[in-house]
Amino acid sequence: MPTFSDRLATQIRQKKTPVLVGLDPRWAQIPEALKSGKSESNPADVAEVFETFCRKIVDVVAPLVPAVKPQAAFFEQYGPAGSAALASIIRYASSKGLLVVLDAKRHDIGSTATAYARGMIGATSPWGADALTVGPYLGDDSLTPFVDVANERDGGIFVLVKTSNPGGAQFQDLAFEGKTLYRRVGEYVQTLAAESVEKTGCACGYGNVGGVVGATWPAQLTELRAALPNVWFLVPGYGSQGGGAKDVAGAFDANGLGAIVNNSRGIIFAYRSDAYKDRFGEARWEEAVEASTRDMIAALAAETTVGRL
Amino acid sequence: MPTFSDRLATQIRQKKTPVLVGLDPRWAQIPEALKSGKSESNPADVAEVFETFCRKIVDVVAPLVPAVKPQAAFFEQYGPAGSAALASIIRYASSKGLLVVLDAKRHDIGSTATAYARGMIGATSPWGADALTVGPYLGDDSLTPFVDVANERDGGIFVLVKTSNPGGAQFQDLAFEGKTLYRRVGEYVQTLAAESVEKTGCACGYGNVGGVVGATWPAQLTELRAALPNVWFLVPGYGSQGGGAKDVAGAFDANGLGAIVNNSRGIIFAYRSDAYKDRFGEARWEEAVEASTRDMIAALAAETTVGRL
Repeated sequence: MPTFSDRLATQIRQKKTPVLVGLDPRWAQIPEALKSGKSESNPADVAEVFETFCRKIVDVVAPLVPAVKPQAAFFEQYGPAGSAALASIIRYASSKGLLVVLDAKRHDIGSTATAYARGMIGATSPWGADALTVGPYLGDDSLTPFVDVANERDGGIFVLVKTSNPGGAQFQDLAFEGKTLYRRVGEYVQTLAAESVEKTGCACGYGNVGGVVGATWPAQLTELRAALPNVWFLVPGYGSQGGGAKDVAGAFDANGLGAIVNNSRGIIFAYRSDAYKDRFGEARWEEAVEASTRDMIAALAAETTVGRL
Repeated sequence: MPTFSDRLATQIRQKKTPVLVGLDPRWAQIPEALKSGKSESNPADVAEVFETFCRKIVDVVAPLVPAVKPQAAFFEQYGPAGSAALASIIRYASSKGLLVVLDAKRHDIGSTATAYARGMIGATSPWGADALTVGPYLGDDSLTPFVDVANERDGGIFVLVKTSNPGGAQFQDLAFEGKTLYRRVGEYVQTLAAESVEKTGCACGYGNVGGVVGATWPAQLTELRAALPNVWFLVPGYGSQGGGAKDVAGAFDANGLGAIVNNSRGIIFAYRSDAYKDRFGEARWEEAVEASTRDMIAALAAETTVGRL
């Protein structure tokens, strides 16, 4: 199988967009028709509704985008039944040809990190994701187990570098000898990404080790794009957190590669937003998913190098 | 219900020890008798074996120690069946009167952090843990949702401060204006812990917000004990990672409170270690669990202020 990095590049070129659709199911915002006869107080009901809702989204977006990003927290919130629905959705999205980035932000040491990696990364793993988000706080020996499993299984990881939330600055922006923590983390991620290119022969120039950099930090996206040439960026914070197409322009290289841009609520709950609710309403929520996805694809193509794909 | 912090203090005083038994099931190391007829390649088999193994450990240690710490990774490694076993073990340990610290090291932003917190913290939550370990990298607005749920539900969190692994130093030991990252994180945890005492009226003087500080860093344990007076420490790294009773002495206050000390492999797989294998062997593995727990209790009582409990 080609590396995760090359499969991602291929998908982006085929779909001509780097849009990543975030699967963040929230009970209160799911169309009523899908919840008929079900109760939030019954985890099995919630799991069933989440699965139906996410499958329908996958059906709409699979022809349009390279990848989806299920957010583990929204499933795990409902206990084991929610976790089972998460695994099922990952399989379903894969079966529809989408790459799956599991946003679970795991981090731990040594053999514990290996347990998470083996459980979650790779089509043959029990959870079956193509890539996993991970945290850097525990340092190099906590990241290399994830990297090793990713490289072995043609999977990927995305390490938190500069997160989209305002509070991310509290520790990430601290400067040590004139260099911020996020920059230091980013440079270590670059080292791992370059080693990954070397080891796996990724043809697209990017490694299987990426970084998470928020759309809410346009200047840092540009800074890090230049400093981390082998690192795919996973860019959250587009749409509901305030990032727009111009804000993420710096995340891409001259060929329109180098980043995937996530939108969760702005797509999956588009039927509730001012921009789409009058046009579609709740009954036609899936059309709102499609329209908002196509609009985001167009906005990125117009405002960034993605148009050259 | 009393706060998590007060329930922890009460348990420690009743059992006269701060030993925390880590539930880290590893297929290869579980006694053969429990695996008879089962296969690691079948996740349902693994889940059943893990559940049986952990229940037996809980039965042995429940009268001896205040709390157990299941490591989520070892369960999640086997997919949804493993996750279901984790939830079951948490319930079982609670039913035996043990506090349960779920070691899942979650971290995320805003409403996503809230989803993890609601799912995992509190007896009424789907996972049902008393406390959860979390990471600090995403900053204050990623931690407060966990704190809020913990305070509301008489639960707790333990924030990674100075982790036990050598690589933890890579970022945690960077000094910003003369103060290390772990110290800065620790001071923020202290702020949250002091607010927790204020808000919930924890009687023992410690808040529902604790910190993780490794047994492998004795000097830092002493430094942080002095600097963070309202912060419970969860101390990993005892035993197999090299920390001993003298190394963790600095984690305790004058009354023997202020920390819980984890031992996973050294207790649950004691029957495999040089210290216990000849005495008990595989057939009497539960007796090795009891002996190693009692030995650790005695060592901490002899070498630290815990003897004054």
